[in-house]
Amino acid sequence: MQRIVLGVEYDGSAFFGWQWQEGGLRTVQDAVQHAASKVADHAVTIICTGRTDTGVHALEQVVHFDTHAERSHRSWLLGINANLPDDVRVIWVRAAVDDFHARYSAIARFYRYIILNRPTRSALQRDRVTWCQHHLDAERMHQAAQALVGTHDFTSFRALKCQSVSPMRLMHFVEVYRQDEQVIMDISANAFLHHMVRNIAGVLMSIGSGDKPIQWTQELLTCKNRQIGGVTAPPHGLYLGGVYYPEKYCLPKHIIFNKLPANAQRFQHET
Amino acid sequence: MQRIVLGVEYDGSAFFGWQWQEGGLRTVQDAVQHAASKVADHAVTIICTGRTDTGVHALEQVVHFDTHAERSHRSWLLGINANLPDDVRVIWVRAAVDDFHARYSAIARFYRYIILNRPTRSALQRDRVTWCQHHLDAERMHQAAQALVGTHDFTSFRALKCQSVSPMRLMHFVEVYRQDEQVIMDISANAFLHHMVRNIAGVLMSIGSGDKPIQWTQELLTCKNRQIGGVTAPPHGLYLGGVYYPEKYCLPKHIIFNKLPANAQRFQHET
Repeated sequence: MQRIVLGVEYDGSAFFGWQWQEGGLRTVQDAVQHAASKVADHAVTIICTGRTDTGVHALEQVVHFDTHAERSHRSWLLGINANLPDDVRVIWVRAAVDDFHARYSAIARFYRYIILNRPTRSALQRDRVTWCQHHLDAERMHQAAQALVGTHDFTSFRALKCQSVSPMRLMHFVEVYRQDEQVIMDISANAFLHHMVRNIAGVLMSIGSGDKPIQWTQELLTCKNRQIGGVTAPPHGLYLGGVYYPEKYCLPKHIIFNKLPANAQRFQHET
Repeated sequence: MQRIVLGVEYDGSAFFGWQWQEGGLRTVQDAVQHAASKVADHAVTIICTGRTDTGVHALEQVVHFDTHAERSHRSWLLGINANLPDDVRVIWVRAAVDDFHARYSAIARFYRYIILNRPTRSALQRDRVTWCQHHLDAERMHQAAQALVGTHDFTSFRALKCQSVSPMRLMHFVEVYRQDEQVIMDISANAFLHHMVRNIAGVLMSIGSGDKPIQWTQELLTCKNRQIGGVTAPPHGLYLGGVYYPEKYCLPKHIIFNKLPANAQRFQHET
């Protein structure tokens, strides 16, 4: 039995999220499982780093599956892509080293949230960004976001239905900056709670528009109450940007992870 | 009667190009005409700067129409957008000054051609870029493109079915550069022949991959023969980026047109 690791890009617009669901809903997991099973010539189960919600995209989701089929990396790549719809693409293939697990071995996840900040909606980016017509002060958002860096109880930023045992997470960095008409948030933590990135984006947008003060992020952290935490920003501005694993696994590393401290540790999953 | 000018963005993926066609094919002109006629409460005809082919996008197509309806700019904007499908958006509205004509008053057009240059296709950008898996040398493409700047006979770069009387055009600038995995060509001329941008992109890609020498652009200009001019690059990497009009018309000006010489003149259209 061999474990194969894939980097997967997808346009989440036409998917009901990552996870396989009853009733034949179109999900990314289902698409990748179906394609990989065809190439393997036996049923495989695809495990991902982090499940994404309906409408959320991935620049680089990392997944693995176990197989007894022997194929070259190139055969897996071409074969799986040939069996995928064109809104999902495998972008790299590696053999798993040692005890690698797409979810449990990860040291950090990186998400990007993109806001189109201009008076009118965009035709070209309609499913790829969140539109905000009121001017956002990116510098103010960046300042407000710095309160989130470090280890905190993120109760105010997790979905009420979030099933994680602990609300504690270690935030490595949050950077908010403007690129022409876009305001972009790059955010990395050891792991994220359900809706955590979108809830942070929603809070920062209220601060960026001037509706809320800069210290609101700190206040929310302190009060540990999701009920007062503001709106969850829409899914279609959100991208899973990359995952960082210990170097021993020899996987492609997104340049943004060079910002992580050298001693960053993987998240200790409960259960 | 008043003439209204619109800036229009569209995702060309699901359109059979700009121009209205027999048989009810889905075209951008038809969509905008339909929406503007609804708001005007009478049938209007939409005239554009430059017709785009099937699959070609626009960041900023400029169009005009004549109407006796009196509406605020905001009413035109919101009203037309409310009646458009979400892959077309009006991004600004102005009243025409003087003898303005979307096509005949233009001094220069700007197109952008985007090539995704990496080993695998992209799920997210699948209809937005042209994919090239062989490495392209952007600097070499840029050098080769400089032979096209100035006034030339572009016979080798026009579609065989191109209906323009003259093959002479004035190329203001062509710039090719790399941005991470993308190779981008920004190109501006007083006007373009049919398929001219895509034929130039096709030629430059052959030069960038090393298949053809840098001086091939110059050779093609000299021999004035489309038959040896290489492949027409695909439409979905192409964007109409903006149009430049004399300042007296008080229309939004793309920052890229700051590169134009101060004495740039509008194209003298044949009839």
